[in-house]
Amino acid sequence: MRILVVNPNTTGSMTAQIGACARAATSSPGITVDAVNPAHGPASIESHRDEVLAALGVIEEVEAGEAAGYDGYVIACFGDPGLLAAREIATGPVVGIAEAAMRTAAYLGRSFSVVTTLARTVGHAHDLTHLYGVAAQCAGIHACEIPVLDLETDPTARDRILQACKEALATDGSDAIVLGCAGMADLCAELSTTLGVPVVDGVAAATAEVEKLVRLGLRTGKTGEFATPPTKEIR
Amino acid sequence: MRILVVNPNTTGSMTAQIGACARAATSSPGITVDAVNPAHGPASIESHRDEVLAALGVIEEVEAGEAAGYDGYVIACFGDPGLLAAREIATGPVVGIAEAAMRTAAYLGRSFSVVTTLARTVGHAHDLTHLYGVAAQCAGIHACEIPVLDLETDPTARDRILQACKEALATDGSDAIVLGCAGMADLCAELSTTLGVPVVDGVAAATAEVEKLVRLGLRTGKTGEFATPPTKEIR
Amino acid sequence: MRILVVNPNTTGSMTAQIGACARAATSSPGITVDAVNPAHGPASIESHRDEVLAALGVIEEVEAGEAAGYDGYVIACFGDPGLLAAREIATGPVVGIAEAAMRTAAYLGRSFSVVTTLARTVGHAHDLTHLYGVAAQCAGIHACEIPVLDLETDPTARDRILQACKEALATDGSDAIVLGCAGMADLCAELSTTLGVPVVDGVAAATAEVEKLVRLGLRTGKTGEFATPPTKEIR
Amino acid sequence: MRILVVNPNTTGSMTAQIGACARAATSSPGITVDAVNPAHGPASIESHRDEVLAALGVIEEVEAGEAAGYDGYVIACFGDPGLLAAREIATGPVVGIAEAAMRTAAYLGRSFSVVTTLARTVGHAHDLTHLYGVAAQCAGIHACEIPVLDLETDPTARDRILQACKEALATDGSDAIVLGCAGMADLCAELSTTLGVPVVDGVAAATAEVEKLVRLGLRTGKTGEFATPPTKEIR
Amino acid sequence: MRILVVNPNTTGSMTAQIGACARAATSSPGITVDAVNPAHGPASIESHRDEVLAALGVIEEVEAGEAAGYDGYVIACFGDPGLLAAREIATGPVVGIAEAAMRTAAYLGRSFSVVTTLARTVGHAHDLTHLYGVAAQCAGIHACEIPVLDLETDPTARDRILQACKEALATDGSDAIVLGCAGMADLCAELSTTLGVPVVDGVAAATAEVEKLVRLGLRTGKTGEFATPPTKEIR
Amino acid sequence: MRILVVNPNTTGSMTAQIGACARAATSSPGITVDAVNPAHGPASIESHRDEVLAALGVIEEVEAGEAAGYDGYVIACFGDPGLLAAREIATGPVVGIAEAAMRTAAYLGRSFSVVTTLARTVGHAHDLTHLYGVAAQCAGIHACEIPVLDLETDPTARDRILQACKEALATDGSDAIVLGCAGMADLCAELSTTLGVPVVDGVAAATAEVEKLVRLGLRTGKTGEFATPPTKEIR
Repeated sequence: MRILVVNPNTTGSMTAQIGACARAATSSPGITVDAVNPAHGPASIESHRDEVLAALGVIEEVEAGEAAGYDGYVIACFGDPGLLAAREIATGPVVGIAEAAMRTAAYLGRSFSVVTTLARTVGHAHDLTHLYGVAAQCAGIHACEIPVLDLETDPTARDRILQACKEALATDGSDAIVLGCAGMADLCAELSTTLGVPVVDGVAAATAEVEKLVRLGLRTGKTGEFATPPTKEIR
Repeated sequence: MRILVVNPNTTGSMTAQIGACARAATSSPGITVDAVNPAHGPASIESHRDEVLAALGVIEEVEAGEAAGYDGYVIACFGDPGLLAAREIATGPVVGIAEAAMRTAAYLGRSFSVVTTLARTVGHAHDLTHLYGVAAQCAGIHACEIPVLDLETDPTARDRILQACKEALATDGSDAIVLGCAGMADLCAELSTTLGVPVVDGVAAATAEVEKLVRLGLRTGKTGEFATPPTKEIR
Repeated sequence: MRILVVNPNTTGSMTAQIGACARAATSSPGITVDAVNPAHGPASIESHRDEVLAALGVIEEVEAGEAAGYDGYVIACFGDPGLLAAREIATGPVVGIAEAAMRTAAYLGRSFSVVTTLARTVGHAHDLTHLYGVAAQCAGIHACEIPVLDLETDPTARDRILQACKEALATDGSDAIVLGCAGMADLCAELSTTLGVPVVDGVAAATAEVEKLVRLGLRTGKTGEFATPPTKEIR
Repeated sequence: MRILVVNPNTTGSMTAQIGACARAATSSPGITVDAVNPAHGPASIESHRDEVLAALGVIEEVEAGEAAGYDGYVIACFGDPGLLAAREIATGPVVGIAEAAMRTAAYLGRSFSVVTTLARTVGHAHDLTHLYGVAAQCAGIHACEIPVLDLETDPTARDRILQACKEALATDGSDAIVLGCAGMADLCAELSTTLGVPVVDGVAAATAEVEKLVRLGLRTGKTGEFATPPTKEIR
Repeated sequence: MRILVVNPNTTGSMTAQIGACARAATSSPGITVDAVNPAHGPASIESHRDEVLAALGVIEEVEAGEAAGYDGYVIACFGDPGLLAAREIATGPVVGIAEAAMRTAAYLGRSFSVVTTLARTVGHAHDLTHLYGVAAQCAGIHACEIPVLDLETDPTARDRILQACKEALATDGSDAIVLGCAGMADLCAELSTTLGVPVVDGVAAATAEVEKLVRLGLRTGKTGEFATPPTKEIR
Repeated sequence: MRILVVNPNTTGSMTAQIGACARAATSSPGITVDAVNPAHGPASIESHRDEVLAALGVIEEVEAGEAAGYDGYVIACFGDPGLLAAREIATGPVVGIAEAAMRTAAYLGRSFSVVTTLARTVGHAHDLTHLYGVAAQCAGIHACEIPVLDLETDPTARDRILQACKEALATDGSDAIVLGCAGMADLCAELSTTLGVPVVDGVAAATAEVEKLVRLGLRTGKTGEFATPPTKEIR
């Protein structure tokens, strides 16, 4: 089984970390997990404009993945840019880390809180909760106001995220935390231990979900909205 | 007042027709309405992939529009591609034809029916009804299975759309019709006369809405989600 | 084009101010805007009982307006009393200031906050957000506890409304303010400047919306619920 | 205990029949049930305009009822005109027949179907299902297109209503029928026997509910929205 | 008329108190109200596990009640355990105290607050508000963290519940209080007097509702989901 | 890793088949999957009463599973009886086949159709779609009116289920099928091939989900509603 994990931004160090987290989520070393990012596009995704630019890169990577014969795909940015388009293009299943994280958290209790990066992205995450049917389970979306790329470099990031998680749990009375950025994936285990609640990282959740779907022989339904898109002139 | 109407696809003949419909919707010849389309992108928009590609073009045109000092923008494709990104970028108001058509129809009765092109686009239109708060007013979304570009050339298109409108009204018991494609704009008056119900074309509705917003001094709120996006490295 | 603006309460000074605000919202001095109020009914509308009494007056004014041949109507009280009945009676479009203000604000961002007069009217405004499909966009409804008629005379009113707007924006994290009373129309521009967010006055929004609908040839659908009501014996 | 049943229309023969049905729903002949109708207003209620006119009459009757010291009130028209205003005015509980019929039916299974008079009233009934929280329980609202006053005189009315009930049950798969007009109250027992499902008449349901509320000492909460309305100049 | 009130827990003293409150809610001493509890099961119901165990006992008591010919049933625990199963089994109506309390409170204003025992039961109560269609009316569910059985013995219980009610009203801005435990039934009148708002006890509300339904000849619809369950081998 | 699959009914042959399907869904033979059923309870689950009886058995099996040290649990009946109680009791994750099947199907397109056994169970399945946040994704629930135990013995069952799936897809326009009974698990692959759409069996989906959760170290949050239930006297 070969899974392609697409980091929609163009920051290679983040792609490498995402790949490592994804590989750790599979059931066996026999499953190949490749992590890539687009050649062009924003270094991080923190606005609706960034989402649009990144979605284009996701499409290109999934099209390349189809040529290379991957069995399934992960879109590794919490905004899930290009998810529906990728479902049209790919033969195998495609899972975004926001949908996987939030649907996975729904198995762990009544409600979860999302802790994410910038407040300006909260609206988009809110839209996703409705799109994925987890609006009732999502007790709150909380920004820690750390830009995505600072997650790797800011020495205070870890503490501020921990603090945001504590405040989210206290405010929302929720049962679990969902990490709202692929760049937080490496903090998952430590946060869970410290907080005493389940903490869901979307990179792991989505990769394991793709493995699950491929193993069960489940692919996107192709009889309607997600049929291969009509070929047409692209100027 | 100068309004820029962006046709998100790259078919120039459609841009010309959209521009004419938009100009006819303003209150005065003193209002300048320019219609443009992206240099690159799909010739028509009929899939999630097309939406992503078109959204990129919309962003580029709105950025060019800002440099040229337009007061407001219309996004003239029923999927409203790039709408939220354009709101971040533009200083003045930005209105999509789907949101304008559906919100305008909401003033005309309890419910409306959408008549659109391909069935595979119905899901996206359905998502928009929820995003815009018109899900309860939208009694149904009906596809006539005419590809966008055939609207200009297929001699049966007019009759098939009329038939689809009649069936929609009968099935849904709705008070009005919303045309679900910018390419249907020129049919609006004739359909309304034949059907005996209000028929809303989004190109006219959105252009008149932008004029209204600009005249009232209303612009996108810029204190949060729609603040100018952070400048960052775009590879 | 002739637009009739109906102030549902019987306070003539308020009718005059509403008329001035409505006229300022049209695109051309060639559009006639007449403002009237019922001969009978409450001096202000601050309860469900007042809504019922005022709705009767609205019906009478719209019936008179039909006899006089108006092209469209504005109902200029934030409770939109008699709106659905007026849609049955009128040939042209009818727009309430609550629906126009809130739907207009929906174009300006993700969410808006309503600032209104008495807390006892908040429930009715809440019902309207559901009726109009803007419940998800309305982040909060805030009362400043100034009775309607005191808006004209209380020297502290302006400051208290400004303060209520500031608190609403801080509490709700919203992108815009909707003024929840026709009597606040004259404060709109000043509040917007001071607050740095768009502020929507329903009188202007509804008048401009009626102009837009009439110009586009759009009227209430008359094939079902909003057909002319059956004539019957009224004792 | 004294209960006032207000028929919002001005047709005395209907008031008499409603009074009889209401009396039959109480637990004891010791409970006084008086049925009245306004002196002025429409002979039947079949449009939004009729609702407004009737609501005025309801207010006047409830104000008179307060002067006469009634313990509770029934509003006996399926549109529940003036209900919220009556709750402000009355000291005791006020119950509309639509809300009582639909909430009562909710105890009898998963879903119910409403069978009502004219199709043009279906939209208003639909709004009430949302207002009362029974939208999920209401499986359908079906019109038999018999005007209200014809219920008393049209010899085919009984059969057409029965037929509409049968079709509603078959279409909706519901567990019960709600009669959507006070003028159908006398058909309730016979329909239930013939159909083999519970049939709820709002006049009986509302009267028994008012008796229940008064017996339990429950009245409208008066600390907020439903406090006695402010006295003010009524021109 | 004979009504069986089933206390789903196995604490006899609580059954006795519930029986007394239920009897006080009927219209006449001629109505027989018997209160029972299961022979087996939890002494109080404060978890999902308790709900399951108690539901079994409710079924057994209702089956016994059918053999004894009761006309209707009350399930006297705020979680309404076994309610849908009991509706299948019983010929007459079955009403839970949570559904009766919340639907009754809906007649008394726009919104109510629930005051209940342990915070861990709030999620289940929240689910019930959706099941019963009162989610929009329920402004909040507040726990006072008093275990059910301590209601009878803890001398501070009364004051802590009063305090929780006050805080609920202030936080929620609601019109009424719903008591979220059968063990609070005896506090109802006193709380209402002290708080100045209607306070609804589900035991009284449900008993009076069953009396109402039986008097009106209304029973659970038996043509679908609530038909008598198929007899089958129970190991 | 050891997973316990609980068949909530008492039919051993069905337990055996469920166990085989569950084992086939794991990633490795090194994962132990044990399938059990309660000693007492209904032979099949086709009513609310059956649900209650079966939930008791589920609790007992999960309690025994905890003593035996299982890492996670599957509840293998489409009604998910006792799911929330099992989450309180178990240390590891607990997944029901209805929730797993429906959430898994949500990754495969916009919507799915459920094909289940008896029409009388459709209401409960409908409630589950709301509880799990998949109501918008569930396009329809269709009964083929085959009793659960006849699935094993009725030679026409396979064809009738196939036919029901075809009709469901045509009626609902959905992208995938969800099998609404554990007893259909063995038909999954064949149906998917014949129908040309993804078909989701909950036994496989839930087992793979439990494996995924255990592998990722994710367990039910235990700080609130799902904390271990208080020990108490059980008579």
